[in-house]
Amino acid sequence: MDRSAEFPRWKAQCLNKVDLSRKGCVDEDVVDLVQLLNTREQFFTTSSCAGRILLIDGDINGFEVQKQNCCWLLVTHKPCVKEDVMAALKKASGNAVLKFEPLVLHVQCRQLQDAQLLHSVAIDSGFRNSGITVGKKGKTMLAVRSTHGLEVPLSNQGKLMVTEEYIDFLLDIANQKMEENKKRILRFYNCLQHALERETITNSHHKIKEENNPSCSPKKERNPAEAHSKCILEENDKDIENDDDDNPGLSVTVFPKDY
Amino acid sequence: MDRSAEFPRWKAQCLNKVDLSRKGCVDEDVVDLVQLLNTREQFFTTSSCAGRILLIDGDINGFEVQKQNCCWLLVTHKPCVKEDVMAALKKASGNAVLKFEPLVLHVQCRQLQDAQLLHSVAIDSGFRNSGITVGKKGKTMLAVRSTHGLEVPLSNQGKLMVTEEYIDFLLDIANQKMEENKKRILRFYNCLQHALERETITNSHHKIKEENNPSCSPKKERNPAEAHSKCILEENDKDIENDDDDNPGLSVTVFPKDY
Repeated sequence: MDRSAEFPRWKAQCLNKVDLSRKGCVDEDVVDLVQLLNTREQFFTTSSCAGRILLIDGDINGFEVQKQNCCWLLVTHKPCVKEDVMAALKKASGNAVLKFEPLVLHVQCRQLQDAQLLHSVAIDSGFRNSGITVGKKGKTMLAVRSTHGLEVPLSNQGKLMVTEEYIDFLLDIANQKMEENKKRILRFYNCLQHALERETITNSHHKIKEENNPSCSPKKERNPAEAHSKCILEENDKDIENDDDDNPGLSVTVFPKDY
Repeated sequence: MDRSAEFPRWKAQCLNKVDLSRKGCVDEDVVDLVQLLNTREQFFTTSSCAGRILLIDGDINGFEVQKQNCCWLLVTHKPCVKEDVMAALKKASGNAVLKFEPLVLHVQCRQLQDAQLLHSVAIDSGFRNSGITVGKKGKTMLAVRSTHGLEVPLSNQGKLMVTEEYIDFLLDIANQKMEENKKRILRFYNCLQHALERETITNSHHKIKEENNPSCSPKKERNPAEAHSKCILEENDKDIENDDDDNPGLSVTVFPKDY
């Protein structure tokens, strides 16, 4: 069901709404990326979180409470120091858990091929758990996700189970992950800009051809993999998670190369 | 690019290959689900891991080493006891990290609408981070993923940073997550079976109609959301993660109900 004709109306409706997040605005580290996407007619963002360190107070049955109702003891989009966590932990009465959550971005796309392009850029930038959703009513969405998280239980029914030294060690790791996440966002921005420029050039070539010879419209669908060149990845790419398909821990079947 | 005509050949090629995973076979807890999928002409699985507790020895720069080359100190698909982890930790010389990884399943689908159906079932069963990938050559894949993980740094350059009591506490949580993951796999199996039965009935109705009146072929595309009824979710669903769209921590825009 192609409902791309309704896309401009959906986009206008969405971008004119009040931001209902707790924070009420887009996170600083992701503003440029969100703006770049929203200036393009084929995309708009519906939700975003740049990445954060989060201390939540889970329920005492070991299950995390629903996100809407859970008690956030601390949340920061900046590097975090031990003193802040120790102060926040004093308010914990359940099972406190420290998390690092990397970028999450939901982008509605006009057509499947737009989502394919964006997906390809996201994967190349290190967001390997990204995926497309095609909804009941033709809504096509890309969720940008990384596997690059951290989830560490710290207290048991209000009792702290780790030392201050451990929290220091843990925050070092969380802060490093925050830094790496920022690099990936920047890489995503650069790769996307590059891909969109190439796409514009390709489209205007097709348009000129079509205008000169209307019967000469391209027969092939655009191939998103060719629409953008691979970005040059930065040094830290040893840290990019491998696709699960490459993981020897999974029961896998390998396809021939030309598959 | 619709290459669904090539799908049966791809499927045969894939299922006849040797399993190249470290383990060399499909995990017990996911065998039924894998078999159910592979008996249907529109699906085949390309990799799977039922869920596991994993102790890896990361590099000393705080970055996780590449999965292929990393040192696994311990891996189990069953509940785990402290003694096993303590023994495995003795072999750690870098930064050991304990992880719980829930089900990961990659399913190649004949067409986008097959992936939509499966995606919808996965989400309803609690695997909220699932997503579709549409490849360069028309390969349509669903990755089934949950947000229900755990990732806990335990040692710093070979030095254990937590107590045995903490490891006990942590394994309780990891084992609970393992149990919950198993329930979700079972729920996924049941929901999928239900959805596929309904789909078969719907398709055979269409076929009878077409045979009686060849001009009466259905004009509407199949709607995956209607092709399977919602499964009755079990008690533990307070633990199902909410969709990120519902998370007030994200900068969000809410659509009108009829969107």
